[in-house]
Amino acid sequence: MTQNTALLTDHYELTMVSAALAQPIAHRPCVFEVFARRLPDGRRYGVVAGTARVLDALADFRFGPDEIAVVEQFLDADTVEWLRKYRFAGDIDGYREGELYFPGSPILTVRGSFVDGVVLETVILSIMNHDSAIASAAARMVSAAGSRPIIEMGSRRTHERAAVASSRAAYIAGLAASSNLEAARSYGVPSAGTAAHAFTLAFTGPDGPDEKAAFAAQIARLGVGTTLLVDTYDITQGVANAIEVAGTKLGAVRIDSGDLGVLARQVRQQLDDLGATETKIVVSGDLDEYAIASLRSEPVDTYGVGTSLVTGSGAPTAGMVYKLVEVDGQPVAKRSSHKESRGGAKEAVRVSRASGTITEEVVYRAGGTPSIDTSNGEIVRPLQIPLVRGGDVVADLPGLVDAREHLAAALISLPWEGLGLSHGDPAVGTRYVL
Amino acid sequence: MTQNTALLTDHYELTMVSAALAQPIAHRPCVFEVFARRLPDGRRYGVVAGTARVLDALADFRFGPDEIAVVEQFLDADTVEWLRKYRFAGDIDGYREGELYFPGSPILTVRGSFVDGVVLETVILSIMNHDSAIASAAARMVSAAGSRPIIEMGSRRTHERAAVASSRAAYIAGLAASSNLEAARSYGVPSAGTAAHAFTLAFTGPDGPDEKAAFAAQIARLGVGTTLLVDTYDITQGVANAIEVAGTKLGAVRIDSGDLGVLARQVRQQLDDLGATETKIVVSGDLDEYAIASLRSEPVDTYGVGTSLVTGSGAPTAGMVYKLVEVDGQPVAKRSSHKESRGGAKEAVRVSRASGTITEEVVYRAGGTPSIDTSNGEIVRPLQIPLVRGGDVVADLPGLVDAREHLAAALISLPWEGLGLSHGDPAVGTRYVL
Repeated sequence: MTQNTALLTDHYELTMVSAALAQPIAHRPCVFEVFARRLPDGRRYGVVAGTARVLDALADFRFGPDEIAVVEQFLDADTVEWLRKYRFAGDIDGYREGELYFPGSPILTVRGSFVDGVVLETVILSIMNHDSAIASAAARMVSAAGSRPIIEMGSRRTHERAAVASSRAAYIAGLAASSNLEAARSYGVPSAGTAAHAFTLAFTGPDGPDEKAAFAAQIARLGVGTTLLVDTYDITQGVANAIEVAGTKLGAVRIDSGDLGVLARQVRQQLDDLGATETKIVVSGDLDEYAIASLRSEPVDTYGVGTSLVTGSGAPTAGMVYKLVEVDGQPVAKRSSHKESRGGAKEAVRVSRASGTITEEVVYRAGGTPSIDTSNGEIVRPLQIPLVRGGDVVADLPGLVDAREHLAAALISLPWEGLGLSHGDPAVGTRYVL
Repeated sequence: MTQNTALLTDHYELTMVSAALAQPIAHRPCVFEVFARRLPDGRRYGVVAGTARVLDALADFRFGPDEIAVVEQFLDADTVEWLRKYRFAGDIDGYREGELYFPGSPILTVRGSFVDGVVLETVILSIMNHDSAIASAAARMVSAAGSRPIIEMGSRRTHERAAVASSRAAYIAGLAASSNLEAARSYGVPSAGTAAHAFTLAFTGPDGPDEKAAFAAQIARLGVGTTLLVDTYDITQGVANAIEVAGTKLGAVRIDSGDLGVLARQVRQQLDDLGATETKIVVSGDLDEYAIASLRSEPVDTYGVGTSLVTGSGAPTAGMVYKLVEVDGQPVAKRSSHKESRGGAKEAVRVSRASGTITEEVVYRAGGTPSIDTSNGEIVRPLQIPLVRGGDVVADLPGLVDAREHLAAALISLPWEGLGLSHGDPAVGTRYVL
């Protein structure tokens, strides 16, 4: 696999370039906009993630000899030559990672010639749609978990490289750590993990299973602060074995199956009776935001989430589109049924009450000034930041930790119904001033 | 991004290695098995995909200096040294790509020491779960489309690298082509595409839109055999413009919005009235297997599918697991609630009637011989093929075209209810002879 991103592109982007290059329109100044027509699956808010990965992909978007060999099979020589020299020379503005978004929010605005902008559509959407879908689902899980940490452990349930981006997006959304080691290397996401059932099963000898030997081996290497997985055989016996081997200073036990609420209560009682009052309980196994919420009153210390996180908990893609909205200063928009779009380059501000609670997203014509009543102390915050100027990245992008903190603060500013898990309307309305 | 796959691994695989290495169990011969406990989402069959990608990932699974720098932050020196030298030295057998699978099918069997096998869990599952989910969904779309071709155009709705694997899996499942250029380079998947709404919109001048200029520009470069997208403004006018500009030899028109059945009929009539009786109709826009089926009686020539394909049409992951099933020749299995597994290394055969119709999947102890009644001419076909021996790939793996053909033949051999789109039981039962 190559680091080059130029072929992470739909065939038709390049045939459009080809057809355009012979026309005056090819180099007319255009504006493309990334936005979502609606939030997926009745969600109340979306979370932007992927922006920094888009900028990384842009740097590697070059048609070198290997890429040219592919595209020259179906493109004319002029287009091939243009691609060989291609380097995005335009401007990009966008929402920062960890920002909330709503229907119509101009999440990314790409300015450049028609051909300069059109070739970037596929890779930009792939990244934003994936990462924002994961972050949006993950943020709901974090809300549901309250102050209890969640560990992301879904790598095995999604494409091997999507797993890395999922881990990154989940960290932005506030998860505490991830199982994914490549995310630790690439993005500094804290990694975590101890052992699976296979480890305990491996200690099966001629005399049968030996769970205590497995626990002893794990503690010998990972220390008594480790988490022992107690549900390979019988959970009650597993907990007894764990404390017998580890003593009452054992870090945690993990339960990965069964009725997690009932089991957590039983295990808590058993641990307390054994004197292991500080030993934590980690639960995992098909948890989603609803299951996490249902365990609120149970003695659970940490959640592990997998499948539901990496698949966006029912909404595996954010449904963002990349639309040409302006040509030579003139708004353009598709007009056929059911997919009407609003033309023109846009900017957005978010309006909050003096108390901090968000009241609306105002989307207005770029360069304009929307009329907003601030007589009651309302706060108006611009949402787009400059990312690229003349093809060069200019943003001093916030790191993942900053993005996490930004999102955590933003979630507090949602109207209270916005944090509900039930399906419904967006937490705040989008007002267009166009 | 690196080609190296060693860190596409859960943290806990390596802490398990660490804890095991100090114990006699580390090097005991073990068998790990990849299987699905159930088919996702009420499906009648699953389609294996990803096997060749697993073998590619295995070749790049090495802990070089960059990978060691990450893992030595949490592992002891002995384990780090072991990882530095790690090279899988065991054997792998598995179902070929394009093979059907059912609950319990031993899709991949990994034989090696405990530590040799356990470190491969995450990357193997990531690949198999993703690719098989896509292929399984795609095969249903192909069945629903009958003899009409489907083009995969979902790259923008999934992670940028998952898009490439999705394109590959969809091609195995029988889709005709894909928009994804990296899949064309990496796997030889035929690529296709012509133009998006942005192209037509780009021809907006001071006097407003000029759809005919856009069509003329596209034809000038791509020829009259191209596909013109006719729903940017008014579809009836769009079709009239298309034929006016292209003449009656126009290759195809594409409709991407609205009630596709109604529109296809109207457009077919209009094209015929204009004398463009050979001009084909391509439809796209949120199609899934059900929408495809609902268009069976409509004059549609080609389908384009996006979101539903790359998200597995409701089942974005195949739910396969990688379980330790045998230690030193002794079957092992987890025994706690709801997740009981069958221990022991297994093989499988598929039994068909003389007519070719599959009747059952028989899973039996590896090395054994299941008792199968063949008195009525039943055909018994072994399902696993040798893939790796002593760490080296030995399989002369069928290419993608062979995998496509294998699957197409396999689908014909399903009991007729197996091709239904409705939710239900697996098309054939799995019989365990253990």
